Amino acid sequence: MTSLNRRVVLARRPNGLPVPADFRIEHEALGDLPAGHVRVDVELLAIDAFIRTILEETSYHRPVPLGGIVTAFGVGHVVESRARELKTGDAVRGPLLAQTLATLPARMLEKVDTGRAPLSAHLGVLGLSSGVTAYLGVRDVGAVKPGETFVVSGAAGGVGALAGQIARIDGARVIGIAGGAAKLEYLVKDLGFDAAIDYKREDVDARLRELAPEGIDVFFDNVGGELLDVALDQIRPGARIVICGAISQYQGDVSRGVRGPSLYLRLAERNARMEGFAVNNCPDRVGEAEEALAGWLARGDIRLHEHVEHGLERFGEVLGMLFTGGHVGKLLLEP
Amino acid sequence: MTSLNRRVVLARRPNGLPVPADFRIEHEALGDLPAGHVRVDVELLAIDAFIRTILEETSYHRPVPLGGIVTAFGVGHVVESRARELKTGDAVRGPLLAQTLATLPARMLEKVDTGRAPLSAHLGVLGLSSGVTAYLGVRDVGAVKPGETFVVSGAAGGVGALAGQIARIDGARVIGIAGGAAKLEYLVKDLGFDAAIDYKREDVDARLRELAPEGIDVFFDNVGGELLDVALDQIRPGARIVICGAISQYQGDVSRGVRGPSLYLRLAERNARMEGFAVNNCPDRVGEAEEALAGWLARGDIRLHEHVEHGLERFGEVLGMLFTGGHVGKLLLEP
Repeated sequence: MTSLNRRVVLARRPNGLPVPADFRIEHEALGDLPAGHVRVDVELLAIDAFIRTILEETSYHRPVPLGGIVTAFGVGHVVESRARELKTGDAVRGPLLAQTLATLPARMLEKVDTGRAPLSAHLGVLGLSSGVTAYLGVRDVGAVKPGETFVVSGAAGGVGALAGQIARIDGARVIGIAGGAAKLEYLVKDLGFDAAIDYKREDVDARLRELAPEGIDVFFDNVGGELLDVALDQIRPGARIVICGAISQYQGDVSRGVRGPSLYLRLAERNARMEGFAVNNCPDRVGEAEEALAGWLARGDIRLHEHVEHGLERFGEVLGMLFTGGHVGKLLLEP
Repeated sequence: MTSLNRRVVLARRPNGLPVPADFRIEHEALGDLPAGHVRVDVELLAIDAFIRTILEETSYHRPVPLGGIVTAFGVGHVVESRARELKTGDAVRGPLLAQTLATLPARMLEKVDTGRAPLSAHLGVLGLSSGVTAYLGVRDVGAVKPGETFVVSGAAGGVGALAGQIARIDGARVIGIAGGAAKLEYLVKDLGFDAAIDYKREDVDARLRELAPEGIDVFFDNVGGELLDVALDQIRPGARIVICGAISQYQGDVSRGVRGPSLYLRLAERNARMEGFAVNNCPDRVGEAEEALAGWLARGDIRLHEHVEHGLERFGEVLGMLFTGGHVGKLLLEP
């Protein structure tokens, strides 16, 4: 049996914002499945910010070589198996890469329970790069307490939307920063944030001072750049700044440096801390996070809009949307 | 009884490095001592980095007004008292300001025990801005553990020299960064640091990689700027960066921003934290710190060179030395 795979390869390294011409589609006739491997029909790919960073030659994480297939996490069903662990029809999640038909060792994949949550939710609410990241950021790093003021940037993205909801569950007053009226409405009306600020139309510094006159206890940062300084200027004594991402700075090789927070000495003035984390570094915390998230999801305590785009050939365009704010919630691509 | 006081007032706001012409000496005939006050013969002033920052009009801490007397901590003896708490002859410590004869409410002063340690040590090893700062930074913020690698910048200054010694007591391997052969010899031979790097003559990044090939567990930063990025690039997973000061950045108003660490995303990549503190924010921790420091000092476990300059009229020049590295250990001025 031969099958045709379509895959996205890196045609050239992006110069700033990724554009379609940075990628090209290749077709591949797949041969026999090796022992221990499975073939997966890729149904959804998570369009995550880390993808941009590993397109750089000098990336801290394993860079994508020129001409190499682009890394991405995804979900799908096993269509052929030569491994005992997985059988045809199993729903799986893993580093399926940007392609339509993935051939991988079964041990690199995780079987997921579509009875517990729909397939897409295993990339979103229950996904490592969204739900688990939000959970660990709020609980382990931010350690938010009831009555505290929790501010999140990139609030309408997958991580931000979930982080705000988890902080609300933990008793915090939650303020989101996002761009555009539709996102603000989503945060306040759909997700129950206490307030939201439109960074595209409002003076974030002034609005934050109005909404949180006593300052910020936890700032969950997905954006970096100027917003991080705005937040640093308004932290309370003992504040925690959770460094989750810096999407405003991902237009080059972040491992060589980005715009650093010029007000970082506020940390000393106010006995505050800035702490970073990557979910990959916390494998022993994933189980607890998934369990809590699945429970909240089942009870309707948290939700996440899924913005699904279609067509593998649109990979570059859709990746670009992540940086221009052209989506709400979890950005997914159906190849 | 009238007495003559000489005091240092701010003649103009410094442009970068403070210079003598930024200050002038005024003479003042002191009148009768008000009730509840004491008069103190100022014997030593601590020349601390915070003094530079409060010379800015927009300083986060209470700025010195133009024509106002310059803030400084000092020690001396009470020469006249109209307060029950203190009597003539008592040794005291407090915000004596840059002058020769201080008139202050007794409640602003702290009586010190010169039997426990010499008068000068109450500004150095036992002082808030040196010993207590170093203790809290190493123990409360850095939380250094036996066998860890502890790196301190500004290592030959008052805080740095003590921080390194406390980390060594706590079982860490200690590497100091300082400028010039004399300071390196002081750190390694006099204070027992495991190694030292001369930032003026060596490639700090390369030397650190040689001396700490497995990376840095705790970086105690007194300097900021480029050195902070060099350290961030070499932190281990779970590292702690202690933000104590940023003396390389104190040439303007730090509260408006300094050079931010462009590699702060290393915190996320390596699940590390950057935490600041100011001793003023931790009043309940001072007692423990002083007790521990006094014990170590008495047993000879820690020591601190005191660099004493003479002459109140040299205040501006001596303050400048703090930023050009012209001293070893605690910088003091005998007015």
